[in-house]
Amino acid sequence: MNKQFNYLETGSVTSPKGYLASGVAAGIKVSGKSDMALLVSAEPAQYSGAFTSCIFAAAPVRICRERFKQRTPIRAVVINSGNANACTGERGLANSKKMCQLTAKKLRITPSEVLVSSTGRIGVQLPMDKIGAGITLAAEQLSHHGGIAAAKAIMTTDTVMKSAAVEVELGNKKVVIGGMAKGVGMLAPDLKIPHATLLCYLTTDADIDVPLLDEMLHRTVDLSFNRITVDGDTSTNDTVLLMANGAAGVKIVPNTSDAEIFAAALQDLMEQLAREIVMDGEGATKFVTIRVDGAPDEAAARACAKTVGNSLLCKTAWFGNDPNWGRIVAALGRAGVEFDPDKVDVWYEDLPVVRRGGDAGTPESALAKIMENREFVININLNSGDADYWVWTCDISYEYVKINAEYHT
Amino acid sequence: MNKQFNYLETGSVTSPKGYLASGVAAGIKVSGKSDMALLVSAEPAQYSGAFTSCIFAAAPVRICRERFKQRTPIRAVVINSGNANACTGERGLANSKKMCQLTAKKLRITPSEVLVSSTGRIGVQLPMDKIGAGITLAAEQLSHHGGIAAAKAIMTTDTVMKSAAVEVELGNKKVVIGGMAKGVGMLAPDLKIPHATLLCYLTTDADIDVPLLDEMLHRTVDLSFNRITVDGDTSTNDTVLLMANGAAGVKIVPNTSDAEIFAAALQDLMEQLAREIVMDGEGATKFVTIRVDGAPDEAAARACAKTVGNSLLCKTAWFGNDPNWGRIVAALGRAGVEFDPDKVDVWYEDLPVVRRGGDAGTPESALAKIMENREFVININLNSGDADYWVWTCDISYEYVKINAEYHT
Repeated sequence: MNKQFNYLETGSVTSPKGYLASGVAAGIKVSGKSDMALLVSAEPAQYSGAFTSCIFAAAPVRICRERFKQRTPIRAVVINSGNANACTGERGLANSKKMCQLTAKKLRITPSEVLVSSTGRIGVQLPMDKIGAGITLAAEQLSHHGGIAAAKAIMTTDTVMKSAAVEVELGNKKVVIGGMAKGVGMLAPDLKIPHATLLCYLTTDADIDVPLLDEMLHRTVDLSFNRITVDGDTSTNDTVLLMANGAAGVKIVPNTSDAEIFAAALQDLMEQLAREIVMDGEGATKFVTIRVDGAPDEAAARACAKTVGNSLLCKTAWFGNDPNWGRIVAALGRAGVEFDPDKVDVWYEDLPVVRRGGDAGTPESALAKIMENREFVININLNSGDADYWVWTCDISYEYVKINAEYHT
Repeated sequence: MNKQFNYLETGSVTSPKGYLASGVAAGIKVSGKSDMALLVSAEPAQYSGAFTSCIFAAAPVRICRERFKQRTPIRAVVINSGNANACTGERGLANSKKMCQLTAKKLRITPSEVLVSSTGRIGVQLPMDKIGAGITLAAEQLSHHGGIAAAKAIMTTDTVMKSAAVEVELGNKKVVIGGMAKGVGMLAPDLKIPHATLLCYLTTDADIDVPLLDEMLHRTVDLSFNRITVDGDTSTNDTVLLMANGAAGVKIVPNTSDAEIFAAALQDLMEQLAREIVMDGEGATKFVTIRVDGAPDEAAARACAKTVGNSLLCKTAWFGNDPNWGRIVAALGRAGVEFDPDKVDVWYEDLPVVRRGGDAGTPESALAKIMENREFVININLNSGDADYWVWTCDISYEYVKINAEYHT
């Protein structure tokens, strides 16, 4: 199937019809950088979402989950950075609710039409005076071109803003999907339920009912955000939201080629944002794909890919351009998966590294050359079955340590 | 019970009666540092052992495991550093056997009386000419004072040699336990079976039968080496061996106060070596005890302690003297354990940090002061049961990244 979608220049969550956004500095971050975003649909939008599986889910996540039981359409999402509103007890919950109320009041809608997110330091109560003033300011600055400002306002230690949009051709009709994301650390796939490990907001002007939205979101999250890992840590605040407001006048229904094309575009956009997040991983210098084939089942393939992708020794070797495959097999060997070590093959890109569990004989200099690339694939074949899985990960550098030893928000 | 044992000055594996050792430079390490150790008991010794659970167990580990099925007494252990002889196939197995044969020949004993260990780079065949010459040299240099030289020869990226011995008073008889260990990276507790995550050799001149040796070794490994973690990686070569040659003429039998006293001394010695390994963790600047109480069961307590102990974000925060407890609760929240987040309490030493899942109100400056210590305890109470567990871990510094990005043996 040809790709029936194109990326738009400076695409954002306001690229689809009928969305407004803004990003402002409310003074929550001590740096004075923008820290509050507002995303609004002119018309009520259907939505789907996926949230962190962390037992200490932050107050805004708890509010979203509660709201998620109703699934009545929404109009707005209010987001602050600089403070996670996590581990803040009843007062934290009340503050998240208050954020919805203040936003609803400004927009003349009802609080149940507003979702809320926070990201930043854990365990500190929100400065509600600043939040209130920020919401007022953000509402005043809402614009059809505000998507980029919103994407900037949700950043924390991100060095690059993540924003994109695709235009999807469905016969002679067109719909647009926009997205923004943030996240550079505290990132790891959760493998039990679809969840996000980051903040990501997706908008579309297509008209899609909730069951199909849910199906598409969960499938695409599982093939994108759930496959990335920076440091193996999972956040209290991870959230992915997808809004569909129907402003393009194009209805997408299940089991049609339109639904297929739209899902492919959505997945490409989410992959794009997921890749940008890994590329911007705290201090990362390498983007590494770990592909495991020939596993007895998918869970085994996943466990192997994830164990290699999270191995500190592998990550530091990649940083050092060290082709040392011993660290890869050592990681595979502790993944808790049963396989015959004497059958394992490993390639760096298409160069054989390990053949039947031992050195494949490729000169180290040739392998080191691959490690010098900013991006490479490690292919692993367990030769013990038919299942496969892949993850995207990055290396660990001095900069990772620096950022995380010195980051106090 | 008062401690009925004393540490000896410059104690080593040759402190107990009837042991000889040596450490020599065989040229396996390009640095020219000593890289081959020989440990010999004058009389046949009973022994016990624990080995890596890594599926890619190195050739010497496979040989030891095979030998372990017989449990006939042994006379010697030959150890090389600089090359792990892991993932080296049939040739690797043959080389490990050859090491036993060469050692047996020099010592005029049988190959089945020799155990073998290797540590260093994975996937490279042993340089058998150097190994052969090294064994000859090591045999020539065997001495009753060779324990320290042996401890030095098994080091890889270790910055400090780990060697100690305790003298144990059993009524008016005395026995001695000596030990040496190496290991600074690729270190993590394995929780399924007792295993080592390092090289450690223990000697005693007490006379102890195999069943009691096994029981004492497995219990003490589980309370020492299985509780340490530097980077969450497990090695292909982890080995702990305990030899008992009876040269002191003191028989220790089960269910006696002598057995209890001896076990306490053994455990103290192993804790000592385990602590030294964490303290010497690659680039480590902090020694951190994670203690989890009030868990529903021990597996849950262990999962929580291990997840916090391995969290990169926690480790970098400790390096940065950052009291950020948000990273601790985020790690607890993804440990896969069911508990009520609103009941969780956390202390740094005896200062309350988290109270019922939220900030306990202790000024950050007071908490930061604790983080500045070279050693501190993080106490976590889930208030959801009676089980507890602890691990010893360390921080992650620039130096960790440097060592592991640049270490090519």
